[in-house]
Amino acid sequence: MSAVSTESPLAAAILARLQEALGNRSAALHEPVFAGAEWSYLKECLDTTFVSSVGKFVDRFEADLAAFTGARHAVAVVNGTAALHVALLLAGVVPGDEVLVPTLTFVATANAVRYCGATPHFVDSDEGTLGMDPEALRIWLDAVTERRSGVCINRRTGRPIRALLPMHTFGHPCELDGLLAIAKDFGLVLVEDAAESIGSYYGSRHTGTFGRLATLSFNGNKTITTGGGGAIITSDTDLARRAKHLTTTAKVPHRWEYVHDEVGFNYRLPNINAALGCAQLEQLAGFLNSKRRLFERYAAAFRDLPSVRLMSEPEGCTSNYWLQTLVLDEAVAGERDTVLATTNAAGVMTRPAWGLMHRLAPYLDCPRAPTPVADSLERRIVNIPSSAGLA
Amino acid sequence: MSAVSTESPLAAAILARLQEALGNRSAALHEPVFAGAEWSYLKECLDTTFVSSVGKFVDRFEADLAAFTGARHAVAVVNGTAALHVALLLAGVVPGDEVLVPTLTFVATANAVRYCGATPHFVDSDEGTLGMDPEALRIWLDAVTERRSGVCINRRTGRPIRALLPMHTFGHPCELDGLLAIAKDFGLVLVEDAAESIGSYYGSRHTGTFGRLATLSFNGNKTITTGGGGAIITSDTDLARRAKHLTTTAKVPHRWEYVHDEVGFNYRLPNINAALGCAQLEQLAGFLNSKRRLFERYAAAFRDLPSVRLMSEPEGCTSNYWLQTLVLDEAVAGERDTVLATTNAAGVMTRPAWGLMHRLAPYLDCPRAPTPVADSLERRIVNIPSSAGLA
Repeated sequence: MSAVSTESPLAAAILARLQEALGNRSAALHEPVFAGAEWSYLKECLDTTFVSSVGKFVDRFEADLAAFTGARHAVAVVNGTAALHVALLLAGVVPGDEVLVPTLTFVATANAVRYCGATPHFVDSDEGTLGMDPEALRIWLDAVTERRSGVCINRRTGRPIRALLPMHTFGHPCELDGLLAIAKDFGLVLVEDAAESIGSYYGSRHTGTFGRLATLSFNGNKTITTGGGGAIITSDTDLARRAKHLTTTAKVPHRWEYVHDEVGFNYRLPNINAALGCAQLEQLAGFLNSKRRLFERYAAAFRDLPSVRLMSEPEGCTSNYWLQTLVLDEAVAGERDTVLATTNAAGVMTRPAWGLMHRLAPYLDCPRAPTPVADSLERRIVNIPSSAGLA
Repeated sequence: MSAVSTESPLAAAILARLQEALGNRSAALHEPVFAGAEWSYLKECLDTTFVSSVGKFVDRFEADLAAFTGARHAVAVVNGTAALHVALLLAGVVPGDEVLVPTLTFVATANAVRYCGATPHFVDSDEGTLGMDPEALRIWLDAVTERRSGVCINRRTGRPIRALLPMHTFGHPCELDGLLAIAKDFGLVLVEDAAESIGSYYGSRHTGTFGRLATLSFNGNKTITTGGGGAIITSDTDLARRAKHLTTTAKVPHRWEYVHDEVGFNYRLPNINAALGCAQLEQLAGFLNSKRRLFERYAAAFRDLPSVRLMSEPEGCTSNYWLQTLVLDEAVAGERDTVLATTNAAGVMTRPAWGLMHRLAPYLDCPRAPTPVADSLERRIVNIPSSAGLA
């Protein structure tokens, strides 16, 4: 480790408040809780030998996800990245297209665009939601795009902009009304990256039910986990059918023949992972309550600390509080690394935001809007312990 | 079901012999056996909460796979298809290349070539091994390729042929000496699709240790299973390091920063699936013995049936007998569907070979050698119940 001063009063104040809220325990950033039927469902998989692509838990997990989110269909897949890849293909993204992506996101959002042979076009975030800023985006698209035969074209690159891929950062819904209006006005397909937002609602509707398609993630660090896993959700029955086909090697149903009618993917979720998901989903309401209680404890601890804002759910929204987040004021952004070093050294795990996509080596040459807010947020975000088990 | 005559004496004779060998049980084509530490390893994952990308079983599974196969390194991934994709990228396959692939294979072999932006170039199989026929391949490459600046070029398409991707069909090693000589003489990288051949040896060396890289699969129907899973094996330390990096989102190690230095993939195997793999690998020697005993029982039952050949391991090889296989004589190939219908109706599950790749819609326009043997084998292969638990 590089030498980091621990003399920062801000770092000491943050650590003291975290320890107060956490009852002086050491704490990971996010650990899953297995307090339900995980054990019995896994045992059922072993006892029946149905651990792989055959078995009842995949069907049940998909039905349960649809019921929980209110999307008509869910297709379980091997992880959130695979879900993004196929959702973008089904949104009509083809090689040579561009897709609007927040520069403040996990790398999977941008990678999935690349897997389609398309180019991510990075845009700015909003200070309040940490997600795509529709006002800045509209100004940018007005400036750089034109419609040709109904298609939104980036005049600078000559490429079609096919889709809009906002992400609900740390579980906080982004401004979907504004983004839906942009999708409509510019002829873009809205695909929601809801990897982090199961249990988060924009108004009374679950995130992921606003776009034509959306994606979920059940990685080990998420609100519920399948070990590794994800899902595509949509209320379009034809897209759901296509999603299932493409993610299961595009095999044509037959009692014994092996015929595949297009280039498909081996993205199906194994039954054993779906079994874990079914058990986790049964506990989701409790996890969400716990995470909200933890937020309230943090809110009490941090209420009197100037220059630090604890992220709370945007107005009119219900957040799942997947990752609790401190946002430092710009004036103290220079102390972020000291905050990280001090807290991690004390056994209270904290993390900064992801490196912005437009500064990663593989994406240096991609088109982008001005990103002053994301540039600033990246220097100021500190995620703090967030497990449901801490409440 | 379409109407199928059950009056075929051949079908009746085959069913009778299968029932004799199986002790009149109904039988699936291939079911896993969980008779070891599966239960305790899964429980350990839940108890420690390490079900996902963090945990000890991934490292152990990789070390155990390397030890078992004799490859210096193994990198566990989410399935065999993902392993093929990354192995081909690491073999240097780039968009516009061609890769030599058997037309008699599972669709993943061809799909993985497409994921690299390359084109599969289909070649024929050998009647004895069911794998790539090096003699026919050499004649074909002599006829259609030339070397330009050391690169093998398909003169008909003008494209470079970069790699050679044989598959060890149903666990029977293909003729690696001949294929290695071709790789050397034509400047091709040999990548082995060993999805079906864990526990199979060419001479005294494990399949998958002859090519620069090889891939394994642990799907639910394989000799050992992780639910879904696969691995890349190689003895090239630099390639192994690259494989790990590419399959784990190309994240640069850092105590907290999220920086990714290339377009990577989310192909890591979850710890919970690796836990299953560790337990299965401990039982592999027993599974292999059981599968050999089952072969011997079939050999006794089918010794006196003309016009049907039970696949046995190629000379000088040790097969894992993953899928037991009957090969009908050409003269009775027309009875294959009756055999399938009769046996499946009686609860003895049988399956034909995969539809040949060059006849699948997405691959109709790909280059290919004459494939008379594969064309014939496709009509004559019947896979029969093969689980280790049947012995």
